[in-house]
Amino acid sequence: MDVISENRCFGGVQGVYRHPSHVTNCDMTFGLFLPEEAEQGPVPVLWYLSGLTCTHENAMVKAGAQAWAAEQGIALVFPDTSPRGEDVADDPNYDLGKGAGFYVNATQAPWAAHYQMWDYVAEELPRLITGNFNVDEDRQSITGHSMGGHGALTLAMGLPGRFRSVSAFAPICHPTAGDWGRKQLGAYLGQNEDMWVPHDATLMMRAEGLDIPLLVDTGSNDQFLDYLMPETLAEAVMTRRLPANLRLQKGYDHSYFFVSTFMEDHVAFHAEALYS
Amino acid sequence: MDVISENRCFGGVQGVYRHPSHVTNCDMTFGLFLPEEAEQGPVPVLWYLSGLTCTHENAMVKAGAQAWAAEQGIALVFPDTSPRGEDVADDPNYDLGKGAGFYVNATQAPWAAHYQMWDYVAEELPRLITGNFNVDEDRQSITGHSMGGHGALTLAMGLPGRFRSVSAFAPICHPTAGDWGRKQLGAYLGQNEDMWVPHDATLMMRAEGLDIPLLVDTGSNDQFLDYLMPETLAEAVMTRRLPANLRLQKGYDHSYFFVSTFMEDHVAFHAEALYS
Repeated sequence: MDVISENRCFGGVQGVYRHPSHVTNCDMTFGLFLPEEAEQGPVPVLWYLSGLTCTHENAMVKAGAQAWAAEQGIALVFPDTSPRGEDVADDPNYDLGKGAGFYVNATQAPWAAHYQMWDYVAEELPRLITGNFNVDEDRQSITGHSMGGHGALTLAMGLPGRFRSVSAFAPICHPTAGDWGRKQLGAYLGQNEDMWVPHDATLMMRAEGLDIPLLVDTGSNDQFLDYLMPETLAEAVMTRRLPANLRLQKGYDHSYFFVSTFMEDHVAFHAEALYS
Repeated sequence: MDVISENRCFGGVQGVYRHPSHVTNCDMTFGLFLPEEAEQGPVPVLWYLSGLTCTHENAMVKAGAQAWAAEQGIALVFPDTSPRGEDVADDPNYDLGKGAGFYVNATQAPWAAHYQMWDYVAEELPRLITGNFNVDEDRQSITGHSMGGHGALTLAMGLPGRFRSVSAFAPICHPTAGDWGRKQLGAYLGQNEDMWVPHDATLMMRAEGLDIPLLVDTGSNDQFLDYLMPETLAEAVMTRRLPANLRLQKGYDHSYFFVSTFMEDHVAFHAEALYS
């Protein structure tokens, strides 16, 4: 594993690291914020999954999360959103291929060779991080934005027992029914829609539910509301009578200005679960 | 004036605006954060001057200042660092020309036609902002990073009575003596070094002093310490017996991870002056 950069940040260290990935079959880069407390012993960790077009870097520099993670003594992981490299298949559109892995294991050509983002985020990267840094594998929570909110929700429901809490900023809630989802799930997983179900938060909520605390924020002026469909997840959560906090935030849009505004709430929400 | 974007952010609005500038003789773009309180009446304002290579955008998305400005009910202005446009003179090096205006009024060819950044930041942009937004011209403070810290310090000392407080992150403290300064001041202002004095914070501190509160943070691991020369400003401040808070922060470097870490302190410092 190569150290790309390490910067002192809020008393801790914001690092960027690169490693050969066996599951995506290419080099992968991720950001990791370790609070000062990690010098003394293992700290809990919050995963932040990013949205379309992002790398590991966007949220790391724009979401303002380190301030609150430092306050709570929590590590932050910022994975990339897709495999990278010249020999990795891509698509000219922003919403397929590089920067658009959708946190699934692709089964279809040409994607299957590298697009194994579920296994990367669910298995390989957690092992790498808990094996190399002072991070407590028994205290993990997860959040994400947009496509990353979709990833956070589906990982939390698909890996029961793994996370102590889950939240999302403007998540894609029902990708099997919308333009941010049908194209990509079809490309990566093929046209048998049964294979898509584990990657649709609304369908998973209806089928499996969730037994950890849930917080979701979406902006009432989000320019992509028709793609996100927060109403479908809300209906599924309420039908299940699950304790959850689903908020529509007046006037906010899809940007990092929205994410950063509510980051303090999300980190505090996860801290409560991680320290309970 | 054109609205480029307006995003809801921490209860207020992060806007980006473009306007024809008479002093720089080109279109200029700036960022303005208005807290929620600006809907009710004029709010105090903190100027943030950026460093080499930056536009209006870098600090606006990476410094995390809006969280604290919203908490304090303070507006933030993020000016650009130079004139822009195809007919604006430039230099292939990152530290001269576009992105490197050094907050001076150039007198030399080819720079003088557009590089009038002192007048832009000291006169034209304040008038534009106080004339068009709910910002209180009697309650202004100023900060900045690196070249922008130099700008904040020299503007504060060159315009007595204008600002209620001044701070800086890793400022260039003594540009007439270093590689971040001699080349640029020579190019913009000519080789008569008497003309450089108003644009050197250490020389101005020795000659004029300062009668408002001062806070300066610099990282002990800043990779540009030899260019910044914090020791020269510290010596000048202490020799004058001025009340000031000059801090060297252990382990921090020159990045926005450093700036964002101490932004809360700086905004709180300015708030105390702006609300007293």
